[in-house]
Amino acid sequence: MTESLELPAAGDLLAFGRRVLAQQPFSVLLGTRLQQLEPGRAVLTLALDDRLRQQHGFAHGGVISYLADNGLAYVGGSVLGNVVTSEYKINYLRPATGQQLVARATILSASKRQAVCECRVYAVDNEDEKLVAVAQGTIARVG
Amino acid sequence: MTESLELPAAGDLLAFGRRVLAQQPFSVLLGTRLQQLEPGRAVLTLALDDRLRQQHGFAHGGVISYLADNGLAYVGGSVLGNVVTSEYKINYLRPATGQQLVARATILSASKRQAVCECRVYAVDNEDEKLVAVAQGTIARVG
Amino acid sequence: MTESLELPAAGDLLAFGRRVLAQQPFSVLLGTRLQQLEPGRAVLTLALDDRLRQQHGFAHGGVISYLADNGLAYVGGSVLGNVVTSEYKINYLRPATGQQLVARATILSASKRQAVCECRVYAVDNEDEKLVAVAQGTIARVG
Amino acid sequence: MTESLELPAAGDLLAFGRRVLAQQPFSVLLGTRLQQLEPGRAVLTLALDDRLRQQHGFAHGGVISYLADNGLAYVGGSVLGNVVTSEYKINYLRPATGQQLVARATILSASKRQAVCECRVYAVDNEDEKLVAVAQGTIARVG
Repeated sequence: MTESLELPAAGDLLAFGRRVLAQQPFSVLLGTRLQQLEPGRAVLTLALDDRLRQQHGFAHGGVISYLADNGLAYVGGSVLGNVVTSEYKINYLRPATGQQLVARATILSASKRQAVCECRVYAVDNEDEKLVAVAQGTIARVG
Repeated sequence: MTESLELPAAGDLLAFGRRVLAQQPFSVLLGTRLQQLEPGRAVLTLALDDRLRQQHGFAHGGVISYLADNGLAYVGGSVLGNVVTSEYKINYLRPATGQQLVARATILSASKRQAVCECRVYAVDNEDEKLVAVAQGTIARVG
Repeated sequence: MTESLELPAAGDLLAFGRRVLAQQPFSVLLGTRLQQLEPGRAVLTLALDDRLRQQHGFAHGGVISYLADNGLAYVGGSVLGNVVTSEYKINYLRPATGQQLVARATILSASKRQAVCECRVYAVDNEDEKLVAVAQGTIARVG
Repeated sequence: MTESLELPAAGDLLAFGRRVLAQQPFSVLLGTRLQQLEPGRAVLTLALDDRLRQQHGFAHGGVISYLADNGLAYVGGSVLGNVVTSEYKINYLRPATGQQLVARATILSASKRQAVCECRVYAVDNEDEKLVAVAQGTIARVG
């Protein structure tokens, strides 16, 4: 999530974030949607269609990692502007089934140059929402 | 990388691994290729086509994470058989440009039930190959 | 935190945990105290005396890591019994000053054999308490 | 490992590093020794006396983490000068027994402001040396 503009006013963050997402061919390929973006909070969703699965019908771990990484980057970007993910760690908790993944990311600590963030990824199966992965990482401001 | 068969003889590992990869819709979508698989060593490649980029033309971090995760799982599976990734950590070192990503994974330590593995991801730009990410994680045997 | 006895009833967990801590020479050397231990929650404290500092007077990172690791192990042990830390990741957020460190650990997900836990470490300086590190890791049952 | 002086010439790095180590009360308490320090390579050792154990006679995980963290910081400092550990991840591979721990750290990638490093910790039992933990993390330049 890097972008050559200044951070917009809080009210415009979501539109700004969606514009960046639309410029990421990989996110467009997967079908990611940015549902919320405010300073210190980001929510992304991804419909779990058949293309995103592994051989047993669960979401591929790489899809979950992608969404967690993007969640971390968006929430870091919500306070830092242009950012890249420096590093993160993820624990997978259970296989992800159902119709949708939801990534909810928050900031644990931020300086002017970087933020340490966490992201929790849930799988939504009808009414049931289960935590499937937790990630913690560092987002760095660019430029 | 889970599969309901026993581990094949070493000579058949590569064919076995490729069969598993072909059953992962997400890996097929991305175009991942398993180049080597022997006990304790796995090499995967991925052509960096435009679908896999972020907004500045670099490989999306989620693509690199996916490949590292798969590298860890394949090398763990090379000695454990049916496996899942339990957890991993990745550091991104520089933007990935060029035509191809190469993930090379090795085993640091293995017991009967799990293996701690590392994976290094390189970006190949014509003749030039640069280290773009390093990952370390735990692969667990299933069943 | 490994111990050859079964997990005690919830009411006895704290006494059990303190007995284990008293058997760890390294924890005795540092002066760690187990303040709370109930299923899914552990709190440890450590007085920041001069022996635990680095060259600028802050708590040495290794002290903070030790406390985070122990917090993860205790909270995992609160539901699993005899455990070892398999792996963890820690982000240091700011230098730790003051009189005391407090580690608060919780469980994110647990199966019969392992638990994924998080631990937040705070530095207490008079009335002021600041988050200085966050850790996430896997605790495995032994035997 | 922070120090208000400039990095010395390569030949003086070891003496510089030992001076810093001697200023860390916690490292003095544990008895850490810096055996090698050259640009991109650091080796630390620690005699495993009884104070450093947990309740079953193995080295306490916190001791191993401390040594890995210090190994990462020293090798990062060998090219960056004044540094702090930003974050790291460690996998414990087996219980550490014997007389001594040895931490060997190298640099995977370095910029002017930070380095991504790895550290492998070995336990030495008479003639036998076993890998007991592997760590990967980010070291940041200070000032």
